[in-house]
Amino acid sequence: MKIAILGGGGFLGRRVADRLAATGTLGGRMITGMTLFDIAAPPAPKAGFPIDSLCGDIAELPEAAIPTGTDVVFHLAAVVSAAAEADYDLGRRVNMRGTDAVIDACRRLVAAGGKPPRVVFTSSIASFSGGQSATLDDSAKQVPANSYGAQKAAAELFLADATRRGFMDAVSLRLPTIIVRPGRPNKAASSFFSGIVREPLLGLPAELPVPDDFKVWVGSPNSAVAWLIHAAAMDTAPMGLDRSLNLPGLAVTVGQILGAMDQVQQGASALVARRPDPAIADIVGGWPASFTAARALALGFRPNEGLVDVVRAFVADDLEPTRRDRGMS
Amino acid sequence: MKIAILGGGGFLGRRVADRLAATGTLGGRMITGMTLFDIAAPPAPKAGFPIDSLCGDIAELPEAAIPTGTDVVFHLAAVVSAAAEADYDLGRRVNMRGTDAVIDACRRLVAAGGKPPRVVFTSSIASFSGGQSATLDDSAKQVPANSYGAQKAAAELFLADATRRGFMDAVSLRLPTIIVRPGRPNKAASSFFSGIVREPLLGLPAELPVPDDFKVWVGSPNSAVAWLIHAAAMDTAPMGLDRSLNLPGLAVTVGQILGAMDQVQQGASALVARRPDPAIADIVGGWPASFTAARALALGFRPNEGLVDVVRAFVADDLEPTRRDRGMS
Repeated sequence: MKIAILGGGGFLGRRVADRLAATGTLGGRMITGMTLFDIAAPPAPKAGFPIDSLCGDIAELPEAAIPTGTDVVFHLAAVVSAAAEADYDLGRRVNMRGTDAVIDACRRLVAAGGKPPRVVFTSSIASFSGGQSATLDDSAKQVPANSYGAQKAAAELFLADATRRGFMDAVSLRLPTIIVRPGRPNKAASSFFSGIVREPLLGLPAELPVPDDFKVWVGSPNSAVAWLIHAAAMDTAPMGLDRSLNLPGLAVTVGQILGAMDQVQQGASALVARRPDPAIADIVGGWPASFTAARALALGFRPNEGLVDVVRAFVADDLEPTRRDRGMS
Repeated sequence: MKIAILGGGGFLGRRVADRLAATGTLGGRMITGMTLFDIAAPPAPKAGFPIDSLCGDIAELPEAAIPTGTDVVFHLAAVVSAAAEADYDLGRRVNMRGTDAVIDACRRLVAAGGKPPRVVFTSSIASFSGGQSATLDDSAKQVPANSYGAQKAAAELFLADATRRGFMDAVSLRLPTIIVRPGRPNKAASSFFSGIVREPLLGLPAELPVPDDFKVWVGSPNSAVAWLIHAAAMDTAPMGLDRSLNLPGLAVTVGQILGAMDQVQQGASALVARRPDPAIADIVGGWPASFTAARALALGFRPNEGLVDVVRAFVADDLEPTRRDRGMS
């Protein structure tokens, strides 16, 4: 089977590519080729099958990014929340025109006699509002409070419609806030959820802009990759018209995240300074803090591992690479 | 105040233009100018203020269609359900690129120092699924079963986001199936809901493709115009992030529609032939047949008049013009 990863140079795209390169199979079928596409040509992992790496603008997606015979498309390319909020036109171009281009590429494959490819799309809980007290079930409607969330919710509608029309076979995954992200602190309002773990484990101070009892819906990088791969191979027939899923993440408080870190490295949370920031609290406080995700569980998506395991996985997989990337060792 | 009507040549656009021309005011304020825009230049009604009539492609909306100083935009231009289903690209172009163009036009007005214009958008109950047994409340999520509905739901998201960003002040109205439409039978799956009243009252036979106990959510042309005008002048502050409304239509059966017609013209329903059509029943059977519309009622939208009044209004306002248009008198 042939795979295409759009956004193949990003945080999750690289991990999915690495995982598929390592296993050589997806859903029990041999992988025979992979195409990686991003704004800069993504690094190709070592694999037992050929990997093409391409760069370009997703809104002007080249045909080679989803070549004839592609079975599975991971559509992970996006302008994320802070950037889509800062630049409306850029968000619309990448998040909407990019999704239109993916639909058109799949239509061309089908028009040429191919099977509708499975498309796994990363949507986000930022497409919901509701706030700290909300526990949303699978019937909850999306009322986005940011342009990124509005664009993701609209893309879900277009992908579901393209599925109904036979252009593709889409599954949209509304990812939780992912912790622990490697790399550096960034301007995303949610950056601190990873920062309060990553920075202290690097021996660096971190700032916490919300109270310790602040609730957040999280998922780990390992779970995100596992969910994406499950979505690529699962039976979609039970989904019907609704091709979008809330995932079985973890409803936790910031205090519980810090507690898990201290279990892995005693005293690490002493490096976390409480610096209340109403602007950040206002943004992240609008996101729902809990989901039931019954539908995803019934479709075989595995619940996220516990917080201590999330921190341990970061230490095992990402701490040294992050240290290296940041010139700390 | 200045008004722009996009889709000003359509069934509802012409009625809104006529009504505003006749009253000369909107929400208690004097109308000082109106612009009508459609694919062909709409006829301008007689009015006590200047009316410009323009034609063009909504996806390439000319600046003159929403001129500087516009206070209210009625965005009624659309490719409707059957056409959007038959031609995916056309539906995407008109329903999505057209809505983007409306957003960009409003952004330009605001960037030039203007007030965000009120934008009244016609969405549709075709953005929902659920079927005959569904009674949807205001928290129901949209799971469209057709491209038109997906495009309308996505446009709602973009207009709500544009509102949050300060580009406009949008209200999206999810119109029920409108009966009684004047004119001729057409290929829309819902055409028969009007046809079973209009045709017999013209003395012509009509076909009924569903059982008499088939349920449908309807609104009249008069209520639709009243809802659009109320949405143009109402206080939107209580709406918050969710700028879309289900409207207080009528949950009726086809048998009740025929009964109302017979009350207005005895024996008219004898011209209705039962011709079960599973293809049509399948499409219209997917639409929800009832809504609670509590939010719209709380915001001052008036409930639809009863079925007998709906039929009487058709006879009073539309029967002779329809007869004339069809060369029957």
